[in-house]
Amino acid sequence: MVWDVARFTGLIETALSDFLDAKERELAPLGPDAGRLVAAARGSLRGGKRLRASFCWWGHHAFAEEPAESEILARACAAIEMLHASALIHDDLMDASLTRRGQPAVHKAFEAEHRVAEAGRGWRGDPGQYGAAAAILLGDLLLTWSDELLRHSGFAPGPIAAAMEVFDRCRTEVIAGQFLDVSVQARGHADVDEAMTVLRYKSAKYSIERPLHLGAALAGAGEPAMHHLTAFGLPLGEAFQLRDDLLGVFGDPEVTGKPAGDDLVEGKRTVLVALTLDAAPEADAAFLDAGLGRPLSDPELTRLRAIITDCGAAAQVEEAIVALTDAALEALESADISADADAALRALAAAATQRAV
Amino acid sequence: MVWDVARFTGLIETALSDFLDAKERELAPLGPDAGRLVAAARGSLRGGKRLRASFCWWGHHAFAEEPAESEILARACAAIEMLHASALIHDDLMDASLTRRGQPAVHKAFEAEHRVAEAGRGWRGDPGQYGAAAAILLGDLLLTWSDELLRHSGFAPGPIAAAMEVFDRCRTEVIAGQFLDVSVQARGHADVDEAMTVLRYKSAKYSIERPLHLGAALAGAGEPAMHHLTAFGLPLGEAFQLRDDLLGVFGDPEVTGKPAGDDLVEGKRTVLVALTLDAAPEADAAFLDAGLGRPLSDPELTRLRAIITDCGAAAQVEEAIVALTDAALEALESADISADADAALRALAAAATQRAV
Repeated sequence: MVWDVARFTGLIETALSDFLDAKERELAPLGPDAGRLVAAARGSLRGGKRLRASFCWWGHHAFAEEPAESEILARACAAIEMLHASALIHDDLMDASLTRRGQPAVHKAFEAEHRVAEAGRGWRGDPGQYGAAAAILLGDLLLTWSDELLRHSGFAPGPIAAAMEVFDRCRTEVIAGQFLDVSVQARGHADVDEAMTVLRYKSAKYSIERPLHLGAALAGAGEPAMHHLTAFGLPLGEAFQLRDDLLGVFGDPEVTGKPAGDDLVEGKRTVLVALTLDAAPEADAAFLDAGLGRPLSDPELTRLRAIITDCGAAAQVEEAIVALTDAALEALESADISADADAALRALAAAATQRAV
Repeated sequence: MVWDVARFTGLIETALSDFLDAKERELAPLGPDAGRLVAAARGSLRGGKRLRASFCWWGHHAFAEEPAESEILARACAAIEMLHASALIHDDLMDASLTRRGQPAVHKAFEAEHRVAEAGRGWRGDPGQYGAAAAILLGDLLLTWSDELLRHSGFAPGPIAAAMEVFDRCRTEVIAGQFLDVSVQARGHADVDEAMTVLRYKSAKYSIERPLHLGAALAGAGEPAMHHLTAFGLPLGEAFQLRDDLLGVFGDPEVTGKPAGDDLVEGKRTVLVALTLDAAPEADAAFLDAGLGRPLSDPELTRLRAIITDCGAAAQVEEAIVALTDAALEALESADISADADAALRALAAAATQRAV
């Protein structure tokens, strides 16, 4: 099947909204607060590139002798988007981010609701603490709903069991990878190897390799297929995150929707930063090291960008993106998959590594 | 089978530690931070009364024609304890609690690690933010591990599917119930009905009814058995939480391990508080309402306790505990279960409602 992106996106939206409709009915006995919670869930699932769902879809079509019904497969793909929405809500809270996809982050939206109420109808307690609690709970809810949605997607018990093995591994990897990330940031040091480990677990596997595996597991694919997908998906996932690292420093806020130099301000110990600290002259490296994790003036940001460029680290990362993407595409060639799946995966690879958002 | 509590507790500990050993091996490639995370998981699972696991165990034995192997059933029971540990970690963070079971709460322990490191080896950023992030992630991890442990307990796919239906419902109810709780606290008002809804979803169902259902589902029990367990477990769960409400106001810190009048200081809108606001003289009610959710001096706490007692609310709650427990035990009589299960469930009912901790 040739990829009809609009139809695919529509299927994912339907899978998500049908599930949330059912949850709204299930929670109705709890009263209007439960309605607020489900409404916030809907909001947090809106938008997004559906990248992970796309890789799941094509991981399935690449190896399925007889692909699943579209509605069934879409529910399984939507489950990863549900997991991702949960991760973003908790991530934004941990990073104290203000916005997500141009909207207030979930904890800020609940905080604002408390503040407005405080002014008008006398809510109590600290609005920030309320916002944090609500975001923790909504993230928890979407985390539990993600595996529920996957298990109820409509696949037979055998494929579901295989998919849950992948899903379990995926959830554990991404959460442990995030813990590694915040710990490395707190220690204020990561060499290139450590930064690569964070990148691999927090992003590369989670965003691309495991979604591919999930789709393939639902197709009953065996070890050889899984190895092919790793050979394609893992380097591609690394390239995807390296692109993200570059955008986190050089991205256009108008396009990314994030503040300029966001990763630097947040003190992220990315591979790009680790390479710069290795390659830059001592004074420049010290300036970068001291600048990470605090607000930056425009001239400071300009100087940090120059340091990262001048020492060759930015170019090194661009080269790595090309090399990793080439390796991924080469691996795809040796996989025996349909022309349609091959074309779609190539298009996805380009979208994941050549993006500006 | 007669209940050997020490053997039961040992089986639960083994199920938990075997699972965590496997996770430690799985996460080894992520390096020493992953080891810290698993160590914190072990710590958060230590201690506790294993109340929920006990109800699951006896829900199974009450209706199983041929009970499962002890090791298999223990893994399923341990899964609820894993879920509970996750809930406590996030709860303590949301409530900004300092301790849990006499130890620093998870977010405080990670915060302290950051502080010590900050003094000695130069960690960066805000220790509180690091502690919060680590607690969010550890809670997420245990939440995902709880259903993984249940699905891998060793039961056949049929019973697992039935159990997961209960588990899904249980997780959704408790998280939505917590959201209701924090929202009601923020609005600073809950009538008796609203407070009962919070109590039912956040605690009664989650702590007793659903664990019973889970064990019974694993025994292949049908609707009539589930109804019997609801008739027993739901009123008992309500009595359990009403006891908790009383302990939250009148409990001895030496015994409960929590600060005196903890629920009042946290501003919890419990059934006990709602009854007092209805029954107390206007000035007393206003004093209580104004005192909720802020630090209390000893004389203030003494006066609040007197208000709650003098208006009859405390006695009303004691009476409700007796009436609900009686109703639960009466429901048990009409259920056709073994003498051993009957005796164990009666002992658990007493432990849940007559406790001082």
